[in-house]
Amino acid sequence: MAREATRRRERRPTSSGPRQMRFGAVRNRYPPIAMLSADEVESIHHASLRLLAEIGMEVMHDESRGLLKAAGAEVDEATQRVRFDPALIEERIRTVPASFTLQARDPAKNLTVGDGSLIFAATGGPAFAHDLDRGRRPGNYQDMCDYIRLVQSVNVIHQEGGCPCEPTDLPADSRHLDFYLAAIRLTDKNWQCWALGGYRVEDAIEMLSIALGQTREQLRANPATLTIVNSNSPLKLDVPMGEGLCAMARAGQPVAMTPFTLSGAMSPVTIAGALAQQNAEALALIALSQIVAPGAPVMYGGFTSNVDMRTGAPAFGTPEYAKAQIASGQLARRYNIPYRSSNVTASNAVDVQAAYEGGMSLWSTIMGGVHLIEHAAGWLEGGLTASFEKLILDAEMLQLMRSFLEPLKVDEANLAFEAMQEVGPGGHFFGAQHTLARFDHAFYEPLLSDWRNFENWSDSGARTGTERANAIWKELLKSYEQPPLDPAVDEALEAYVARRKEEIHATR
Amino acid sequence: MAREATRRRERRPTSSGPRQMRFGAVRNRYPPIAMLSADEVESIHHASLRLLAEIGMEVMHDESRGLLKAAGAEVDEATQRVRFDPALIEERIRTVPASFTLQARDPAKNLTVGDGSLIFAATGGPAFAHDLDRGRRPGNYQDMCDYIRLVQSVNVIHQEGGCPCEPTDLPADSRHLDFYLAAIRLTDKNWQCWALGGYRVEDAIEMLSIALGQTREQLRANPATLTIVNSNSPLKLDVPMGEGLCAMARAGQPVAMTPFTLSGAMSPVTIAGALAQQNAEALALIALSQIVAPGAPVMYGGFTSNVDMRTGAPAFGTPEYAKAQIASGQLARRYNIPYRSSNVTASNAVDVQAAYEGGMSLWSTIMGGVHLIEHAAGWLEGGLTASFEKLILDAEMLQLMRSFLEPLKVDEANLAFEAMQEVGPGGHFFGAQHTLARFDHAFYEPLLSDWRNFENWSDSGARTGTERANAIWKELLKSYEQPPLDPAVDEALEAYVARRKEEIHATR
Repeated sequence: MAREATRRRERRPTSSGPRQMRFGAVRNRYPPIAMLSADEVESIHHASLRLLAEIGMEVMHDESRGLLKAAGAEVDEATQRVRFDPALIEERIRTVPASFTLQARDPAKNLTVGDGSLIFAATGGPAFAHDLDRGRRPGNYQDMCDYIRLVQSVNVIHQEGGCPCEPTDLPADSRHLDFYLAAIRLTDKNWQCWALGGYRVEDAIEMLSIALGQTREQLRANPATLTIVNSNSPLKLDVPMGEGLCAMARAGQPVAMTPFTLSGAMSPVTIAGALAQQNAEALALIALSQIVAPGAPVMYGGFTSNVDMRTGAPAFGTPEYAKAQIASGQLARRYNIPYRSSNVTASNAVDVQAAYEGGMSLWSTIMGGVHLIEHAAGWLEGGLTASFEKLILDAEMLQLMRSFLEPLKVDEANLAFEAMQEVGPGGHFFGAQHTLARFDHAFYEPLLSDWRNFENWSDSGARTGTERANAIWKELLKSYEQPPLDPAVDEALEAYVARRKEEIHATR
Repeated sequence: MAREATRRRERRPTSSGPRQMRFGAVRNRYPPIAMLSADEVESIHHASLRLLAEIGMEVMHDESRGLLKAAGAEVDEATQRVRFDPALIEERIRTVPASFTLQARDPAKNLTVGDGSLIFAATGGPAFAHDLDRGRRPGNYQDMCDYIRLVQSVNVIHQEGGCPCEPTDLPADSRHLDFYLAAIRLTDKNWQCWALGGYRVEDAIEMLSIALGQTREQLRANPATLTIVNSNSPLKLDVPMGEGLCAMARAGQPVAMTPFTLSGAMSPVTIAGALAQQNAEALALIALSQIVAPGAPVMYGGFTSNVDMRTGAPAFGTPEYAKAQIASGQLARRYNIPYRSSNVTASNAVDVQAAYEGGMSLWSTIMGGVHLIEHAAGWLEGGLTASFEKLILDAEMLQLMRSFLEPLKVDEANLAFEAMQEVGPGGHFFGAQHTLARFDHAFYEPLLSDWRNFENWSDSGARTGTERANAIWKELLKSYEQPPLDPAVDEALEAYVARRKEEIHATR
């Protein structure tokens, strides 16, 4: 009874906000679904090696091209084209670690990447912010900060995803500093930095060094940030991404190599072709990272989706997307590299389309054995917008999946013979001893779902899920508590940011 | 080129309604997900046999009790309690066919049940109808007919689900005749009849005999309707359901035996216990069907969900529901009996909750190896309401799943090396020969999803998915064409209904 009471207390929210799950690691015990036969995986593997050998990649970043040449790749400096011998790729990707950990400011929120662990990261990169009250507007500093506060407050989210919306009201060349400072101050979860140019990576690492009180050597041994590097599909690596990749690898911080292979636009109109291209680009970038620093942590990123052939508009959460994510998981496992995918939708509103496209994404990526779901919460409009209501919708969907992944207990007590004997045919289990002993923790408790009957629901305003989500994020913001940070550390970070801004603006 | 043109023409809708998939069988090639170990499946099996042996079921229907007694069950007439020796159950369920077919009025729409086939049935049984324009109202004849017209018009739906909404404006004891006549006239798909009492089953079979021009013997060999029999959980079979079960088995028409095991209310608060009870009730009813008529076609029905422990309200599409459906599939496969489950939600509106609870249902039942998804389209409010917009939302989600289940082609042509050679780094695939040759059929084309960018979507009214669904069902109704029926057959059916109504109302 005392134990029951304790457990009951533990279920109460830590602060006064809405009831929700506690922060916790998620393990996926299901064997991943296979979409491709072993032979088909090999076909895609070999097709991608052939692409890299015969067509190659255009590498615009001089340093990367130089490193690849030194490692044995065939480089045509006039066209910046780099061709890779299959053996070079196969040999270099061998040093990739199968899993690694990520430090958070709160060590209780450190993350394991790979090894059966499943990480939910908030959306990163949108240009706009949106909520029901204020509509859609260009991303700004205030929205960015509020969104990071929500990422901190929603327990099912493990990681900040690399800036929820671009603070377009701040200077473009230094706003990464404002984001990093906000991410360190407003959340004690791990956060993702920007790969766009080497200096943005360097600033992240310097600021993490101050925030965590660790040397760069220590950070190299225990990475504390992660970033996404996209190739410019088809088959191109641009200068800022090349710089970011090299800087991250050198610093021992992980990079999710994620080709942006939209089938029918930047990739062949067939999903198999788009996957071959995705695989080629991912392997080339992964090989580059291992040439820069053997053993540098990386992820295999799958983002293959398709366009609407009538309009050219990108489509997300489609059947093609679902298949591509499951197939990408098989490819990542072939190389024993942790796998990153995304929770996506093309919807412009937080409506049924956003929910079912998200459901297609979450089920296919999770059943496909994903390790990191980027944009797991908040992504709208094909990634152009960070939505406050979508964050809550996704939080509910992530909680549902996390609860679904908890194993079903089958033992004498759970098989409940005595309870059925007590209740008998035609009876009711509400008052049974077996029920009372498990009353409080029996089932998943929702954040967003409303299970009241039609009359009660109507009487209290007949609010849709999206309208309820609006109330929930406001309640979360109201009950938000900033995680404490040593004032000396805070001051040192502020000084760093001030100094760097001066330097950056002086060189404009 | 001629072939391409033909294929393009085939993709055009047959009538002038919205673009959608054609009617077609769905095969699920995925090996089903396992939630339980083989030992755990056996534990549930043995727990359910123990329930039937030691607690037994209350069988209120005299004939069923008599048949069970004659077959060797232990019957206490005073309490109507029937206890089953485990060997009796194990022996009797052996005669269940592993698969069977269902005739439709249009033979092109005949259905295979079991054997890797996946059937989507429309919702059956709601008391209310709902749409955005007219709100929620008690089910009525006009709504019932319109809904059946939509079931006919939406190609991804394979089967009418047993009356979309109760026509409460017609007399209760004869309205099944009005439903049957409407089902025969308004759709040429297979439809489900009512199990509530033997005479309702008999009327269905007589009317099918007239409609199809087949004797009852022919119908027994080639069943043409299906029904759901629910036990009164816990562990009870009432008189109307007992009558319906016996009448269907005797006529060789299939029954999906579906215990209504809501964990925490009519079943133990633990999912394992609820599954043991579900399995016990299902096995008892299946054994009864085989005692009535060995080899009678049946399905194993899984419906285990849970209640909200704070309010007692039933919850659907929950993590517990998803786990129970996957486990139910494992149990059904243990007995080699086709498996029926459902697409459910507790939401009161066609909102994000309806979509994500539906997504949880569809993914878990399909990945769990279901053969018939009852309520696949249209169910709202825990089954109290047939929603016109939900029908369209579900149709889109079913199309997505059907497209997802089509295999990914990996061969030379699909791996698209030449296309990538043609386009090269930094190029675009829109104009490539490989793209042009596949332009028209490359990707899934949505019924409901809107993939336009924010500006175009806003300019055309910024309609949510639910609002678009409202326009789509109206457009479908407008373009609906009643499938032709021989006037002599129509007349004979009308005469049958008139005669039966007289008989029924004379005995009131």
